[in-house]
Amino acid sequence: IEVDNKHELLMLLGDVHYADIAEIIHELNLDEATYLIKLLDSKKTSDVITELDEDIRDKILEKLSAKEIADEIVELDTDDAADIINELPDDRRDEVIAFIDDHEHAKDIVELLRYDNDTAGGLMAKELVKVNENWSVLNCVKEMRAQAEHVTRVHSIYVVDDNERLIGRLSLKDLLTASTRSAIKDIYISKVDYASVHDDAEDVARIMAKYDLEAIPVVDELGRLVGRITIDDIVDVIRDEAERDYQMAAGISKDVEAKDSILKLTRARLPWLLIGTFGGMMAAKIITSFQQGMGDFVILLSFVPLIQATAGNVGVQSSAIVVQGLANNSIDGQIINRLFKEFLLGLVNGGSIALIVLLITHFFFNTDYIVSLTIGIAIISVIIIAAIIGTFIPIFLDKRGIDPAVATGPFITTSNDIFGILVYFSIAKLILGF
Amino acid sequence: IEVDNKHELLMLLGDVHYADIAEIIHELNLDEATYLIKLLDSKKTSDVITELDEDIRDKILEKLSAKEIADEIVELDTDDAADIINELPDDRRDEVIAFIDDHEHAKDIVELLRYDNDTAGGLMAKELVKVNENWSVLNCVKEMRAQAEHVTRVHSIYVVDDNERLIGRLSLKDLLTASTRSAIKDIYISKVDYASVHDDAEDVARIMAKYDLEAIPVVDELGRLVGRITIDDIVDVIRDEAERDYQMAAGISKDVEAKDSILKLTRARLPWLLIGTFGGMMAAKIITSFQQGMGDFVILLSFVPLIQATAGNVGVQSSAIVVQGLANNSIDGQIINRLFKEFLLGLVNGGSIALIVLLITHFFFNTDYIVSLTIGIAIISVIIIAAIIGTFIPIFLDKRGIDPAVATGPFITTSNDIFGILVYFSIAKLILGF
Repeated sequence: IEVDNKHELLMLLGDVHYADIAEIIHELNLDEATYLIKLLDSKKTSDVITELDEDIRDKILEKLSAKEIADEIVELDTDDAADIINELPDDRRDEVIAFIDDHEHAKDIVELLRYDNDTAGGLMAKELVKVNENWSVLNCVKEMRAQAEHVTRVHSIYVVDDNERLIGRLSLKDLLTASTRSAIKDIYISKVDYASVHDDAEDVARIMAKYDLEAIPVVDELGRLVGRITIDDIVDVIRDEAERDYQMAAGISKDVEAKDSILKLTRARLPWLLIGTFGGMMAAKIITSFQQGMGDFVILLSFVPLIQATAGNVGVQSSAIVVQGLANNSIDGQIINRLFKEFLLGLVNGGSIALIVLLITHFFFNTDYIVSLTIGIAIISVIIIAAIIGTFIPIFLDKRGIDPAVATGPFITTSNDIFGILVYFSIAKLILGF
Repeated sequence: IEVDNKHELLMLLGDVHYADIAEIIHELNLDEATYLIKLLDSKKTSDVITELDEDIRDKILEKLSAKEIADEIVELDTDDAADIINELPDDRRDEVIAFIDDHEHAKDIVELLRYDNDTAGGLMAKELVKVNENWSVLNCVKEMRAQAEHVTRVHSIYVVDDNERLIGRLSLKDLLTASTRSAIKDIYISKVDYASVHDDAEDVARIMAKYDLEAIPVVDELGRLVGRITIDDIVDVIRDEAERDYQMAAGISKDVEAKDSILKLTRARLPWLLIGTFGGMMAAKIITSFQQGMGDFVILLSFVPLIQATAGNVGVQSSAIVVQGLANNSIDGQIINRLFKEFLLGLVNGGSIALIVLLITHFFFNTDYIVSLTIGIAIISVIIIAAIIGTFIPIFLDKRGIDPAVATGPFITTSNDIFGILVYFSIAKLILGF
């Protein structure tokens, strides 16, 4: 493709959506990608750049001059512009901002840089349409046309008082149907959901999803309207959150993808595997200490994988339900009730599994009644304990302000492995008396 | 609260958002809930009903007459109405539809009932604003005001030809800024993303998220505009998909919540535990068969939990990365390259872990050099094999048209447990020659 035929290439990409161009760039090497970015007009490239993966974007931005970056950035909405500037090294950041001609735009971007990425302030854009309560509809329509120039999509028109404080909203529909002479004061809706700049991004996402909002205004500490968050940003927050929880449950830290380098993948995966390694070592210590006096009952060792698999599975199930419940705010009532329910569930599941194990060990392993019974009782106990640990740990972490999702991965499996094996052999020792 | 003081209750709930009322209803018993639903005016209740959990909604709907349900349904958008009717038993369904006074509305709902829930047709609503290419802007604004009556939110105005075929779109902004005398034909944008009624809902969600669309028009087999899907429905699809994948990975089938009954939770959890049980039994059989000739090397049995935990963790990590890559369409290239990469990763991770295991077994378990070395070599092999199985199974399932997410849960852990233990003892037998 890349044989220096600029015109043909431009023609070819002219009608292609920026998200698709970003995908093409991911397939190219760095020089080709930079060449392409410089070739396309900045209205399009700026959108392409926001769609790129962070690591590739960083490399391409390194190849561009501060002036070139500034030219891309003026084409972007303030929220996307702030995100990109945020990724630059400190010294380049100031340089790029200095190159932004549009002073208002630069000021807005600098303001957004103040907020953490995972707060409402970090998500919001400055682009919005606002009107003063004292204007007339006619006045308002005129102002709106001017403001709408800068706003890609008009969701709601926000109404502010003379102190810029948010007091309500106006729908486009209301505006279309109202008489041109009426005052905004008389037609606006004073009930409006809003977020505060320091609100957690995930909480904002939850509110917007719950109330089916497509945009939410953001106010500062004094109640002044400072920005708005649109649903497309929220879609990204929800997807990121889901991906992170999923990866956490699978024992992968950091945001990695299948195509990342082996080094990056190792860094994300090895630490979790090490948890399992040390857990395995502790389990080995426990087994060795019981093994010595075991005598005739070495058959018990064969069922260690069964105990371990069951403990791990039950633990993950219990914790996943709690983690999801905490995320949806649908966990209510006392912890003690929740634990009691898991106890009952463990009794039902454990009873069923113990029965199957009893039959299989008796008929296929020819173990003594007393050994089969021991394994059965141990399985019920292990399931109940694993369920309770799986329920308790995420609730405990949540109360301490730690993301409970960390508890669903290898962490819970490992602790359940150890407890499961300890319980198994202790019960066996008690019943069989070795 | 429920002391029959109607007026006070109505006053109290008058300003409460329907999503909050739905939450209140979840806390009430069935009689109280039904009482409340009947008390509130149907404009509000209809929204409350769509927000309720399916099982509670079913119970409340049973308590209402077909006429009462029909009254609620006419207040809803066609997509929500169709969803609720879909949940009713067959005979009540026809009865309710017969009670809907508005013929157009009933016809639209019946049309939507034809589509599967997880297709674009099942997600779309009939409410949209469309204009004919031959109209003038003035004409169009008039028509829009009339159509907008039925449409809660106007996203885009769709342009159709005389055969009702979708040919483009018009933004509200363009309309506001165009001269009233221009023809739609001259100002519409002919490039428009659309979905087809039979498209998979998750694919539509992916497209909308990728291109940052807030609404997408849906066409039938003949290219005729039949509905539109809005971003709030897509947010639900994305969340449901994420929840399902997460639960699947945790070994929970069906959509359950912490507060569901023990029976329902058992049905969702026990089948997955049984996979682990049978896997554990096979592992026991393998161990027993090796155990007999093992002689002095019984210490090997102590490290079964280590092998098993490592195999399970690696398998879940590998499969989770592949499953996520498949979901994002970011898995490209040959399977063989992907497997080779996992092989290298396994070598790196396995080597590190084997080294640690070597040191610990030597210093803390006082095992012979040869036994430590055996465990180390076995761990590397197990990790590589687990990584390859974890990568291969989801790709294989995906090629066969099965949701690869099923492969991330107990399924992958169990098969890796069995293979891991088999590989471990085989290698030990080979090296130690028992």
